[in-house]
Amino acid sequence: MSRVLEDYEKLKGRGKDLRLLSSVSMLLEWDQETFMPKDGIDFRSSQVELITSLLHKEKTSPEYKNALEKLIDLESGEIKSDALDGRKKASLREFRSDFLKETKLPSAFVKKLAKATSQGVNAWQHAKKDNNFEAFLPHLKEIVALHKEKADHLGYDAHPYDALLDLYEPGMTSKKLDSLFGELKPFLNSLAKKLSQKREKTAFLSANYPLDEQQKFNHFLLEKMGVDLNRARLDFSAHPFCTGFNPHDVRFTTFTSTTSFFNSIFAVLHEGGHALYELGLPYEDLGTPLADACSLGVHESQSRWWECFIGQGRPLWEFAFPHLEKAFPKQLEGVTLDHFINAINHVEPSLIRVYADEVTYILHIIIRYEIEKEFITGSIDLADLPRIWNEKMEESLGIVPNTDADGCLQDIHWAFGLIGYFPTYALGNLYSGQIFKTFTQTFPDYATSIAGGDLAFIQKFLHEKIHRHGREFHSLELIENATGSPLSPKPYMDYLKSKY
Amino acid sequence: MSRVLEDYEKLKGRGKDLRLLSSVSMLLEWDQETFMPKDGIDFRSSQVELITSLLHKEKTSPEYKNALEKLIDLESGEIKSDALDGRKKASLREFRSDFLKETKLPSAFVKKLAKATSQGVNAWQHAKKDNNFEAFLPHLKEIVALHKEKADHLGYDAHPYDALLDLYEPGMTSKKLDSLFGELKPFLNSLAKKLSQKREKTAFLSANYPLDEQQKFNHFLLEKMGVDLNRARLDFSAHPFCTGFNPHDVRFTTFTSTTSFFNSIFAVLHEGGHALYELGLPYEDLGTPLADACSLGVHESQSRWWECFIGQGRPLWEFAFPHLEKAFPKQLEGVTLDHFINAINHVEPSLIRVYADEVTYILHIIIRYEIEKEFITGSIDLADLPRIWNEKMEESLGIVPNTDADGCLQDIHWAFGLIGYFPTYALGNLYSGQIFKTFTQTFPDYATSIAGGDLAFIQKFLHEKIHRHGREFHSLELIENATGSPLSPKPYMDYLKSKY
Repeated sequence: MSRVLEDYEKLKGRGKDLRLLSSVSMLLEWDQETFMPKDGIDFRSSQVELITSLLHKEKTSPEYKNALEKLIDLESGEIKSDALDGRKKASLREFRSDFLKETKLPSAFVKKLAKATSQGVNAWQHAKKDNNFEAFLPHLKEIVALHKEKADHLGYDAHPYDALLDLYEPGMTSKKLDSLFGELKPFLNSLAKKLSQKREKTAFLSANYPLDEQQKFNHFLLEKMGVDLNRARLDFSAHPFCTGFNPHDVRFTTFTSTTSFFNSIFAVLHEGGHALYELGLPYEDLGTPLADACSLGVHESQSRWWECFIGQGRPLWEFAFPHLEKAFPKQLEGVTLDHFINAINHVEPSLIRVYADEVTYILHIIIRYEIEKEFITGSIDLADLPRIWNEKMEESLGIVPNTDADGCLQDIHWAFGLIGYFPTYALGNLYSGQIFKTFTQTFPDYATSIAGGDLAFIQKFLHEKIHRHGREFHSLELIENATGSPLSPKPYMDYLKSKY
Repeated sequence: MSRVLEDYEKLKGRGKDLRLLSSVSMLLEWDQETFMPKDGIDFRSSQVELITSLLHKEKTSPEYKNALEKLIDLESGEIKSDALDGRKKASLREFRSDFLKETKLPSAFVKKLAKATSQGVNAWQHAKKDNNFEAFLPHLKEIVALHKEKADHLGYDAHPYDALLDLYEPGMTSKKLDSLFGELKPFLNSLAKKLSQKREKTAFLSANYPLDEQQKFNHFLLEKMGVDLNRARLDFSAHPFCTGFNPHDVRFTTFTSTTSFFNSIFAVLHEGGHALYELGLPYEDLGTPLADACSLGVHESQSRWWECFIGQGRPLWEFAFPHLEKAFPKQLEGVTLDHFINAINHVEPSLIRVYADEVTYILHIIIRYEIEKEFITGSIDLADLPRIWNEKMEESLGIVPNTDADGCLQDIHWAFGLIGYFPTYALGNLYSGQIFKTFTQTFPDYATSIAGGDLAFIQKFLHEKIHRHGREFHSLELIENATGSPLSPKPYMDYLKSKY
């Protein structure tokens, strides 16, 4: 083996140890949300803290830096040998980027931010419960101030918001978002107005479905999707999530309620989409960024793909609805396929983001994006947030919340210190829309295949186009490679137009 | 705070970090046995290996040694200040003992042993499956040779076997075991002969009991025992076990089979007994040996207590059998309480240790103990093990296995490198017998209370006598404190005599 390949393997070995350790942290958190007895929480928090500090120590150690510097100039990003192939070069670019992100923030600042968000989450929980924005305001002020500082530490070219955005969606900028959202906003706004109607009576959605029967049907869907249960498992938790310890061990969850089976089905499809991505990452590259997901936006594209593009589509249910009827004949008595499809594709502006339909969803994100930018530029008084929120809701969705709990206090993200994160939810839908266009062109008979119960080709297609690449390309490049065109909101808009 | 107390708190802080990390390792192993998708095994093994090596590194670090040496002379064991109370002095004695055990084995030796036992377990699995002792022999030879070396590294006074025994039962010696077992062997042998009879027809033992109904009944028993499910949980695994991450988070498991419900009930009582011990250790001492269980023998005394002394006793079932009948009327149709009590207390010499009744169980252990001592003194040719095993079975139990798989290959322990461990199983029964004598003297009406459904006083008694002390005393001292007499096999023999 050449010297440079040896150095690369050594770096990968260090990365593998980091992955072993970060996956331990994921297991601690997964267990906390699924099975941990409730009194275990204090000890568990200390465990997570310890592993996090061990990780940070190793990621910023002189030995790790030295292993990196043998291969890439940390200052300029220049790769020190031409002997490496393109994938390995991309891998080094991402190795460096992670290292810089890890080391740019002074540890005193990291601790300060951790404390502020820990207290922030606690204050937010009470403020939301008591509908008391004033109680959360001082915490929000501190968290926002620290994020301005964070942007300065991280550095940026055009806009300080880009520094934060880049943590979740590398390569994305507010300039690009302004352009994408500028085109989407009026379109979605007018489509929502056109489609909006009161929901029909849909008692079957909230009927009683025994949990073990739900799980049987959920597993039937997962098997069809191609989720390999020798490498993944589905459990229950209060909030559905997916965590990939490694491509041979992926955990995800759904809701545990007998009366919201359809929320659970769409959570299973959503988290199952995330799971398929994690399962499709290249195990042989474990220890390097090539075995990581590209970005949060691309991750979201995979979950929304299965939840909306496939999951809310007619073809899937032409095949699956008879199975559903057979498993739940009483609950679905008198419900036709048309009725069912209508019910799961109902469009109506609503107050809460996480329950929004696929037409209005992005409007919720744009509101948050506009506000976050103003957080960072300091152009609004945070005390005015409730008023600003409600004005934007009125303008975008034509409805206004009665309480801040259903308004600007609804999401945990800001309390948690996730500023710059919301746009990835919108991007996921746009990426998915563009991939879907390519998919329908590649498989003109896709609807017939799916309606016939063949879904295996979908997972293969996504694996080929997205999963196997890990972080070799940034999201915009990955989407362009996958679809032959630069990112545009058009395919998503066309998808909605043709569907509704 | 005085300087010495400050030093003690600092040492405790280091110990707490070690406990956080060792509990991570326990979680990794618990998850592996309960929920992990099967393909996760390679990555998981690497995770356990990494955490183990981090632990070893920290436990032998100069900083850790230095923190210890401020309080205790590592050479002589002399405690450097009189200002500490007895508990803290005992804690330091155990801190030192752990440190010496951790540092006495050269790391090259530890690695060699780990490799030998890893290959040994693999070879044993095949050898047992194929009933091929020859295939395991070279591995056994190496493992035994390494254990002679291990005893030399660890050091001992009278007998090299004591060095190994001390790892699992601190303070115990082969001299003491020789005396205990010498008295027990003829007694158990003759009692077993007297009682042995063919099993009556007991179809209800292997009837079909739905798993969720089993779990309901198991939880009913656990609640009665006093297992707090805010701090513990019961799951399923191939082999039942219990692992205490800390006294606020204890996990244990039982069998998952619809047709061996009674194996499961007794596994729940057994592991539930281990769980109660872990739950009863003093959380406030976490980070010090005072929050650890005293020894494996004492741990086993707590599991056998609930499995045999309480679990196979008539009083419990006078109370619980009607509940069982109510939950499973069809499976238990025509079964009377007398019939049931007889069935769960059946005595008959059998080949397999783990299925042995409480009369013959210790005879199985004595056979292994006698053989292990000869391993270490080198007084037998290992190639003769099958013959020696069968002769001992004939002598002790009057039966001989047809295959080595049911003979000297039945247990994983030797392949795993657990030589010196088996005696703790026997000691658990003797400890429990002696505690039971004190219990019946303290609560002359205990049978009436239990039959009336009051079990809370049992857990309180065990907590007072055993659980809360952690490792403040070695097992022999703990038992003498708890019962007022030095350890003797008599109470156990009396218990068996009066019961059968």
